[in-house]
Amino acid sequence: MLNITVPAAVVDLDKVRKNIRRMKQRLDKAGVRFRPHFKTHQSWKIAEIFSQEGIRQITVSSVTMAHYFARQGWKDITIAFPLNLREMDSILMLPEDVTVGLLISDSSTASYSFPKSLLKKSVFWIELDTGHHRSGFSVADFHILTWVIDKLCSTGAHLQGFLFHDGHTYNATGIEEIREIRYNTLSRLSLLREFLSEKYPGRNFLFSGGDTPSCSQELPMEGIDEMRPGNFVFYDLQQLALGSCQPEDIALSVLCPVVASYPDQGRAVIYGGSIHLSKDKLTVGKETIYGVVCSEEKQSDMRLTFPGDLPFLTALSQEHGVIQGTAEQILNLVPGSLARVIPVHSCLVVSNMKQLVSADGTVFETLNLHSVDF
Amino acid sequence: MLNITVPAAVVDLDKVRKNIRRMKQRLDKAGVRFRPHFKTHQSWKIAEIFSQEGIRQITVSSVTMAHYFARQGWKDITIAFPLNLREMDSILMLPEDVTVGLLISDSSTASYSFPKSLLKKSVFWIELDTGHHRSGFSVADFHILTWVIDKLCSTGAHLQGFLFHDGHTYNATGIEEIREIRYNTLSRLSLLREFLSEKYPGRNFLFSGGDTPSCSQELPMEGIDEMRPGNFVFYDLQQLALGSCQPEDIALSVLCPVVASYPDQGRAVIYGGSIHLSKDKLTVGKETIYGVVCSEEKQSDMRLTFPGDLPFLTALSQEHGVIQGTAEQILNLVPGSLARVIPVHSCLVVSNMKQLVSADGTVFETLNLHSVDF
Repeated sequence: MLNITVPAAVVDLDKVRKNIRRMKQRLDKAGVRFRPHFKTHQSWKIAEIFSQEGIRQITVSSVTMAHYFARQGWKDITIAFPLNLREMDSILMLPEDVTVGLLISDSSTASYSFPKSLLKKSVFWIELDTGHHRSGFSVADFHILTWVIDKLCSTGAHLQGFLFHDGHTYNATGIEEIREIRYNTLSRLSLLREFLSEKYPGRNFLFSGGDTPSCSQELPMEGIDEMRPGNFVFYDLQQLALGSCQPEDIALSVLCPVVASYPDQGRAVIYGGSIHLSKDKLTVGKETIYGVVCSEEKQSDMRLTFPGDLPFLTALSQEHGVIQGTAEQILNLVPGSLARVIPVHSCLVVSNMKQLVSADGTVFETLNLHSVDF
Repeated sequence: MLNITVPAAVVDLDKVRKNIRRMKQRLDKAGVRFRPHFKTHQSWKIAEIFSQEGIRQITVSSVTMAHYFARQGWKDITIAFPLNLREMDSILMLPEDVTVGLLISDSSTASYSFPKSLLKKSVFWIELDTGHHRSGFSVADFHILTWVIDKLCSTGAHLQGFLFHDGHTYNATGIEEIREIRYNTLSRLSLLREFLSEKYPGRNFLFSGGDTPSCSQELPMEGIDEMRPGNFVFYDLQQLALGSCQPEDIALSVLCPVVASYPDQGRAVIYGGSIHLSKDKLTVGKETIYGVVCSEEKQSDMRLTFPGDLPFLTALSQEHGVIQGTAEQILNLVPGSLARVIPVHSCLVVSNMKQLVSADGTVFETLNLHSVDF
């Protein structure tokens, strides 16, 4: 095993494989194409496991990330982020044999005169706002959607269909609310499909959805052609709180050196702050937490009740993490030892880290190791 | 000027120099040594300006950062973070002619048998908790402080004195509360000094403090020997809200491509999310904001009242930033253009970025460009 001296994100590759297989089986069974979002792991090593499990189509959240995975040999990449007109040259520099999926999210971008070279190498998706109210056209505004479809088709764009992200499931209070969001979305999509089949008879539009909370439940997927969950590959405390996973499914933890311990005050300090764990937090009962300290052995019994059986992170500075616990729990956090932190949001932990470490001590890089080309 | 295609942190080097000079003059006038914290900028380029302004002693927040600045030639570096016993080898690998200041923050670490080689190259500080309740020994616990002093001195450690960080000023509601924190700290330190002069007659202990909010005001500093503010070099919205700076003093902004615009909904979306701006937020009146969109020309008139004259960031996802504004404001945020965002917390923006850009288009690296050595 490595000599961990600074905060290190440790990935359990067996759990990763299990999480991928479970999600793939669920989507295969429903006849829905699986196009996992790679923004959660941003690493070739994890991408390799997806490839071994038969995945060929992927989702990314930036042009930079598309280049990173294209270099590894991925040929079918959807950039699930509103098309950034300033990155046109960079998109055009993607390898010739890569098909890139682009998102049209507003009418200004839809009106843009796309170069022929872009139309040749890309397929287009119209982003729908199904309730998250972040980006996309309202799913109920048939007028503007017709205008966008006609606009894109008149330029010769290969229009695939519609893409949505029910990101409001992340704010749900539990499974019931997630279920309700899915039903709402399905009924709205159904109305849109009905309209489209009348307006564009014989024409096939695909529907691409996907967020880990709703994909992690046995929910209906009628009319959805592909799903793009990402977080499920690692899961985290937020997903545990939403009921998306069991505690033992969480495949990412952060090993943090303990640097100060105050058992009489029920407090310890770790080297592990917001630049490692991110400021994403979770409210559990009356407590706001930034992570839970839990050994590998105890993970499957982890319950989100605080104050409870496990010490937890109550505050983060840039490099400091403040742990609260009973005197007995803090006595186990001796300076010089490592605290194993289960994070609130694994995607942001990875995007903070330049390297990940597997349980056997292998260090592998992420996209974040690379500089930006201005 | 560069062709900005992805979120870029832009630094106004003239403002940086002004901010450094203003702080140096204030501390010089008070006869207090200036040991700026370099964690805010983490870059050789900004360090160079400090050097040109006569600074020779610096503060960092990690051993990695100490190495980074030691490579640039800095010889007197305090690591203002509880000594991480797991990084002992890395500390010992700092160049021979570097004097490194180390922090003893709890009794477990104070009891450690430090290698002779460490005692030779280091000076030690005892961390005091003056009210922030993060790390350090209670300033009022003379019993334990005597024990730590004697323990350290018995090992032959070069004890400099006491170091504290009034980080609770960051949670203050304004200048009055910051002033109160300073007075409280000074009176506690005075009691400690009185005790020490009786217990250890003739012995000189230094007192090192420093947080940008209290250093940015004309407050008494009696009995404080050195100050270690960091954020002041860039400032940000949080410091503006605390009254630490004027809007025109803020030297860091983030240029973000606009990728979607919905004027009728008073909303636009930028490429600029939590992996660029961090999830640090600010509550102003009833609004929670993650940044303000403001041109260079309008910056000096910027006021923190929302909804007000400027569009602001109401939500961040991993890569998305959601801007709220009037229809007219949003109409100016055309996809393909750049939104200039003043961030809530500049330290975290820099720690997210691998490069900074100066106003004339020069790109310079930060520590974050470098990988971690496991």
